[in-house]
Amino acid sequence: MIDDSALIASLRSALGNHAVLVDDPDMAGFVEDFRGRYKGRALCVVQPANVEQVALVVRHCAQAGVPLLPQGGNTSLCAGAVPDANGPAPVIVSLARMRRIRHVDAVNRSIEVEAGCVLKAVQDAAAEVQCLYPVSLGAEGSCQIGGTLSTNAGGTSVLRYGNTRENVLGLEVVLADGRIWNGLRGLRKDNTGIDLKQLFVGAEGTLGIITAATLKLHALPTHHSLAWFAPVDPQAALRVLGLFQENCGAQISAYELMNERQLQLVVERVPLRRNPLAQRHDWHVLVELSDTRDGAEMDECLQQTLEEAVGAGLVLDVIVAANDTQRAALWEVRHSVTEANKGAGVGLTTDCAVPVSAVPAFIEGATQAVREIVPDIDIVIVGHMGDGNVHFIPMFTFDAWHGLSDAASTASALRRSVNDVAYRLGGTFSAEHGIGQTGLPEMSHYKSPVELAMMRAIKQALDPRNLMNPGRLVP
Amino acid sequence: MIDDSALIASLRSALGNHAVLVDDPDMAGFVEDFRGRYKGRALCVVQPANVEQVALVVRHCAQAGVPLLPQGGNTSLCAGAVPDANGPAPVIVSLARMRRIRHVDAVNRSIEVEAGCVLKAVQDAAAEVQCLYPVSLGAEGSCQIGGTLSTNAGGTSVLRYGNTRENVLGLEVVLADGRIWNGLRGLRKDNTGIDLKQLFVGAEGTLGIITAATLKLHALPTHHSLAWFAPVDPQAALRVLGLFQENCGAQISAYELMNERQLQLVVERVPLRRNPLAQRHDWHVLVELSDTRDGAEMDECLQQTLEEAVGAGLVLDVIVAANDTQRAALWEVRHSVTEANKGAGVGLTTDCAVPVSAVPAFIEGATQAVREIVPDIDIVIVGHMGDGNVHFIPMFTFDAWHGLSDAASTASALRRSVNDVAYRLGGTFSAEHGIGQTGLPEMSHYKSPVELAMMRAIKQALDPRNLMNPGRLVP
Repeated sequence: MIDDSALIASLRSALGNHAVLVDDPDMAGFVEDFRGRYKGRALCVVQPANVEQVALVVRHCAQAGVPLLPQGGNTSLCAGAVPDANGPAPVIVSLARMRRIRHVDAVNRSIEVEAGCVLKAVQDAAAEVQCLYPVSLGAEGSCQIGGTLSTNAGGTSVLRYGNTRENVLGLEVVLADGRIWNGLRGLRKDNTGIDLKQLFVGAEGTLGIITAATLKLHALPTHHSLAWFAPVDPQAALRVLGLFQENCGAQISAYELMNERQLQLVVERVPLRRNPLAQRHDWHVLVELSDTRDGAEMDECLQQTLEEAVGAGLVLDVIVAANDTQRAALWEVRHSVTEANKGAGVGLTTDCAVPVSAVPAFIEGATQAVREIVPDIDIVIVGHMGDGNVHFIPMFTFDAWHGLSDAASTASALRRSVNDVAYRLGGTFSAEHGIGQTGLPEMSHYKSPVELAMMRAIKQALDPRNLMNPGRLVP
Repeated sequence: MIDDSALIASLRSALGNHAVLVDDPDMAGFVEDFRGRYKGRALCVVQPANVEQVALVVRHCAQAGVPLLPQGGNTSLCAGAVPDANGPAPVIVSLARMRRIRHVDAVNRSIEVEAGCVLKAVQDAAAEVQCLYPVSLGAEGSCQIGGTLSTNAGGTSVLRYGNTRENVLGLEVVLADGRIWNGLRGLRKDNTGIDLKQLFVGAEGTLGIITAATLKLHALPTHHSLAWFAPVDPQAALRVLGLFQENCGAQISAYELMNERQLQLVVERVPLRRNPLAQRHDWHVLVELSDTRDGAEMDECLQQTLEEAVGAGLVLDVIVAANDTQRAALWEVRHSVTEANKGAGVGLTTDCAVPVSAVPAFIEGATQAVREIVPDIDIVIVGHMGDGNVHFIPMFTFDAWHGLSDAASTASALRRSVNDVAYRLGGTFSAEHGIGQTGLPEMSHYKSPVELAMMRAIKQALDPRNLMNPGRLVP
């Protein structure tokens, strides 16, 4: 057995002193989540510069029997990127220095990038060759590719382009024993045995450390048509989605829902944001179409579909973006929700998905369920309606939160009540945020014994010593 | 240990006499592949009616230590659905009686079907509610959903809709110990631990028996624009694909390539097929656009793009389908290749994929490679160019084949030479057909030790007694 200081010394000699952080102030940004709610302990933070260095780190840690926790941009909404406060302190492997765009193939529509690349940098590199990397989400300016892969990140364009999983062609991974698996392939089709990359996508670092990926690119849409409208209720919003799917099939790229309370928080709390419509309404939808072609016909399709929806009594008011500036302003309202909610109180973010057809029943059922526990609680709703993924957020004022006799168990009870409604409708408690720390009790509660047993068998097969982010993902 | 006759007796008592076939004439269609090239041995063929019966079969076989081989429509092109001629005779589990469409949700765009449903029946059930199940391939009238899942089938619409893997939302699987895993979910997003369904897709029955699936549906395109044209060469075909992607982005649904020799075989050997163009050309492409909307603009996009391609000297001749009858006739030419090739000689079908950008280099390199072995060999080429998947088929006349001193090793050498070219270009030897029996030597040869070790670890974890289709997929 190697002691901690010997391990740190060997990591320093392998990576250089500058790449191994041990002092508390240096580690502060790595052990606490961005909302400041979760703070853990780490033995040290290492910052390897390449895959060989990651492999060295894993081998040194394996030798010492010390666990590893890989970290990207630390933007997890469920405390997935930071260590636990208790348990053995891991070595945090920050991938931030591995941020090379290794290769772009515009004809094959693929890009090979290192895990530490910021999502926005990958989007930009793709756009430079008139391609689109479609994964898009609030944290795109700071989250890293490795994190988006390890959590199978969703976002606002899943409806058209799928989750991160659907946009990865190949991976490079350092395995639990320090071997490097080079699975970087730029192929649309490859049926040669078990599709190993699927195991690491969404595994939150429990099976290995993703160090690079080959990602799928798409044609870059050059024209967008966007509208903001007030549906009568979620059921009406669903029917309008159906109209759009019939009329403008392949061009729908976003269909985002929020309730009045969510819009109000954005307008009140984020400078320069305002209600896009003249009056208050209970529900709001942002719909966007996009294409690579000149958009006259697409604009017309948007307009006609909205007229049809208004005519059918499904929509109360609507505004169509007249140009790219207006379009950007409407997207900014949508993208401001995290900022708005962060300081507005204590929001218990949930991340359920249900079949798209069940979204109205989910919203109704969840509202009833949480109000049975806290009758007057504020409910903030924002979500990706086209994917059936609704963030239903019971929100306390700070005063109300601090006045609770047992805040933690009230929070758990509220989350559980929302998740229960999703499960009754064939849904899930985690659609796109992953498990992290907050989701672990839900994994135990909701997953069937046969599923948990399979996951444990796979974990045991690929990480028999349980050193890769132990205690996470599978309880 | 239970002997064979006791096992058969217990299977009969569990499933009924009619559902257990033991006589050679009854088993004939299950132990030989559809081209009559591979014939194996089986202990018996069982035809369970539901998932509980499949579980019973697995438990009885596990108790007796007898291996299982699941079978769908027996349309594998690499002898994947029939047992080996040597080795212990398995119980063949035919899923053909499990062919219920359990549930269709048009709003959620999902369908739950049993494994024995014929692909065409699923396409039809989707179309009845104005939806599309996009997986489409030559054998769709007889192949079964379970087989398409177990081989991650590709086909002609992967370019737009992805492989079978991208179109499955949930699975029901009988595991190696006879437990039933109900993973039937109709969700677009579900990040709750390892995505277990990914393990069974493409596993060719080695990890469990898929008994049902929830599949993703899409908006049903109501309008199609199709053209058949002669590109100057594969490089020109690639540049025209680029033009289509720029001009008609989201609407391209097929981009199929064939060479003159392939077209000639179709025209000569299949009744009513003819060359769509007035003259002979070296290369042919079928391109199709589709959308849910009225197609005037789409027709124009097709027309303009082809004019641009002709103007740039990339295309020698072109015909645009004027109506649905002409469109169907052009598709029939494409869909007739298997029939045409079957009796034309001994074709050594290969199934390589390379990055789309490398398709011309692949065709050139493979041509050179096989002609170094058999200088005057016929080369038939047909493939899904938009996916980088080209079936490069060295073809012998029957006389030439029977005149070979060692046909088997000549065949292996030719296949290997083609696959080598693909690998040099970052490609794979199996894009969409799977491994079956013919691909096993290639698995040993091409897959890295680290990949094979991971696959073996997973197999060991989920099927520790090695009873699920042993000896397949991972050599």
